Amino acid sequence: MTDFRQKALDYHAKPTPGKISIELTKPAENAADLALAYSPGVAEPCREIAANPEEAYNYTAKGNLVAVISNGTAVLGLGNLGALASKPVMEGKALLFKRFAHLDAIDIEVKHRTTEEFINTVANIADTFGGINLEDIKAPECFEIEQELIKRCKVPIFHDDQHGTAIVTAAGMLNALEIQGKDIRDVIIVCMGAGAAAVACMELLIKCGAQRERIYMLDRKGVIHTRREDLTEHKKLFANNTDRRTLEDALQGADVFVGVSGPDVLPPEALKLMNNNPVVFACSNPDPEIKPELAHAARDDLIMATGRSDYPNQVNNVLCFPFVFRGALDVRASVINDEMKVAAVNAIREIAKQAVPEEVIKASGADKLEFGRDYIIPKPMDPRLLKRVAKAVAVAAVETGVSRIDLPDGYMD
Amino acid sequence: MTDFRQKALDYHAKPTPGKISIELTKPAENAADLALAYSPGVAEPCREIAANPEEAYNYTAKGNLVAVISNGTAVLGLGNLGALASKPVMEGKALLFKRFAHLDAIDIEVKHRTTEEFINTVANIADTFGGINLEDIKAPECFEIEQELIKRCKVPIFHDDQHGTAIVTAAGMLNALEIQGKDIRDVIIVCMGAGAAAVACMELLIKCGAQRERIYMLDRKGVIHTRREDLTEHKKLFANNTDRRTLEDALQGADVFVGVSGPDVLPPEALKLMNNNPVVFACSNPDPEIKPELAHAARDDLIMATGRSDYPNQVNNVLCFPFVFRGALDVRASVINDEMKVAAVNAIREIAKQAVPEEVIKASGADKLEFGRDYIIPKPMDPRLLKRVAKAVAVAAVETGVSRIDLPDGYMD
Repeated sequence: MTDFRQKALDYHAKPTPGKISIELTKPAENAADLALAYSPGVAEPCREIAANPEEAYNYTAKGNLVAVISNGTAVLGLGNLGALASKPVMEGKALLFKRFAHLDAIDIEVKHRTTEEFINTVANIADTFGGINLEDIKAPECFEIEQELIKRCKVPIFHDDQHGTAIVTAAGMLNALEIQGKDIRDVIIVCMGAGAAAVACMELLIKCGAQRERIYMLDRKGVIHTRREDLTEHKKLFANNTDRRTLEDALQGADVFVGVSGPDVLPPEALKLMNNNPVVFACSNPDPEIKPELAHAARDDLIMATGRSDYPNQVNNVLCFPFVFRGALDVRASVINDEMKVAAVNAIREIAKQAVPEEVIKASGADKLEFGRDYIIPKPMDPRLLKRVAKAVAVAAVETGVSRIDLPDGYMD
Repeated sequence: MTDFRQKALDYHAKPTPGKISIELTKPAENAADLALAYSPGVAEPCREIAANPEEAYNYTAKGNLVAVISNGTAVLGLGNLGALASKPVMEGKALLFKRFAHLDAIDIEVKHRTTEEFINTVANIADTFGGINLEDIKAPECFEIEQELIKRCKVPIFHDDQHGTAIVTAAGMLNALEIQGKDIRDVIIVCMGAGAAAVACMELLIKCGAQRERIYMLDRKGVIHTRREDLTEHKKLFANNTDRRTLEDALQGADVFVGVSGPDVLPPEALKLMNNNPVVFACSNPDPEIKPELAHAARDDLIMATGRSDYPNQVNNVLCFPFVFRGALDVRASVINDEMKVAAVNAIREIAKQAVPEEVIKASGADKLEFGRDYIIPKPMDPRLLKRVAKAVAVAAVETGVSRIDLPDGYMD
């Protein structure tokens, strides 16, 4: 067993199993406390909520509570491990919610026979929470699951593998293109992978200005084009009326490569087919579509990002999901809509462009962090993320009419 | 608004809404911590659990985690308020689990159309938790729900309104009968009410020695007898081959009255129909079936218990459920069987018979607490409950072969 493996197991096992616990936020010392917390006092908030469900936000933990829900069908890069085996990841996500955004999050692992049964299960328990973070659910079921839950639930539903990845990718991409002197509306984009993250990334880039007909998406069979007859509903949206068939075809003159597929699928020589000043996001984790050292050796004019923390420009969902939920919950948004996602993209972009606090540079282990080829995305430990991203999301929710309350006075100032 | 009402609402609303939060049990300060808590380190416990589901107890919070689940169809004495409005009660229960037994508990409120859908929802999420406390679910659905979930889930399922009430009632009843010089096998019992708690109380008293044919159970229509044709499955189990029809008929020569029905349904003069040295448990809350002062005025030879904390002998589920779950989870019991319930009854009984620690007397506000007519049940703040009841339940689980691990060395010593 490697040292790191043993360390990871020990971290989870000792001194107590797992990573989260429940704590009391109210006194429970004596009989007088308990008479308020439980019978007979507890009847009062129950009556208030029965008369007006909105009062649940005033008298229960709902408004600060996120469920992290998975069925374990696509756990990290490990595949379908089953619901229970996904629990460490979901608890880990709960840990990140608390650590970065002071949100209370609890993991729920769901066994089910049909997709419909999964949807029913989540919809039935949804009112318990202020929002629901779906996680590690395989495509294409994840699309139907999210869409149907959005329709059926009154609280925000957010499949982080789709939209968290998309938001951070879009923020980094727009910054990278700006540095390369390119306009998102003009670029040719090659997207390697056609799963949940790929589809969400491309849809969000389109919302940020990218042209659908300039996107070449590839699955295991190559370029997704209009003459293929094996396409799922979501792949059809990216079927390009093109003669390009292979990865090499697609890369001809392309400005952008986004990899959300698997390790080492982008050969260094193929990089040479791309336009000048290309942008390469190789997000497969832990092993990217191309190793940064090989990519930089093949092209010295590229900007590169990966999913790894040991290279510059890490595309890391934690830059996004804690703060998107923070903003959404703080104005009791009923959904997380496209405007809120774009607001998060812009807030994350802006942070990267501004001077970095000394303590963030230190925590990151870097000598310096200055907006440029090696710093297009903020670092996870940057405390500005909470204030700025949450506020941008909350403002967008209010402006698009999906919030149920206004921003609290002085919110995140 | 009364002072108490305002105080109860303020307790729930301020300084933050609700009563529980999530806390981290592991360090999450820097990138090195997060690499263990989340990707890439988290993959290691996931793989372990995928290979052996039992490892979830070693690497996640599951083994100390209880779900408090309700559909809000019978909230306290308030009736069917709906799932969301039950949330303060369920959070309150979570608070009690933590306060009394150091168990982490999270509330889940379930909306559903059919009973089957409720069962499916709970069964689908059950593996997330070490055990499930069902709460405030109306009869007769609660019987089917619990039975079906016990069949389908690998973790203990416990409907507290049934079995928590039954365990504490049985403990107090056996002590009261001992003081009155009566044997449970000989007594005539009148049970006013035929809901979940009533059925469970009578079934557990039968397991403790009571004779089914000496029990007269009454619903709104009077005594449940064998010639009635309107009986649900569970009432049929108590159909008595008798000519007794009214409460007064039933009380003739009865030794025991158990009320789990509604306020003031037992007139003081009816008490005079009972045998000498009777035992009256008037458990309707907050207003008992008969006020203790009226009961004592009518008979000076009775022993009386209620559900209220401001009279002696409070039948309070908190004496039971935190510790039953503590014991069951500590040996990874797959169910909470009758032997474990009876073990809890006996452990609670014994505590009441022994000298009470000074601090418990002080906390209870009493001058003295000595086993006798006014002290047949321990006080909730008694620290002996955790050790003794949990241990008795755990030992019974191991002895009946429903545990998956042995008692830890020196458990609860």
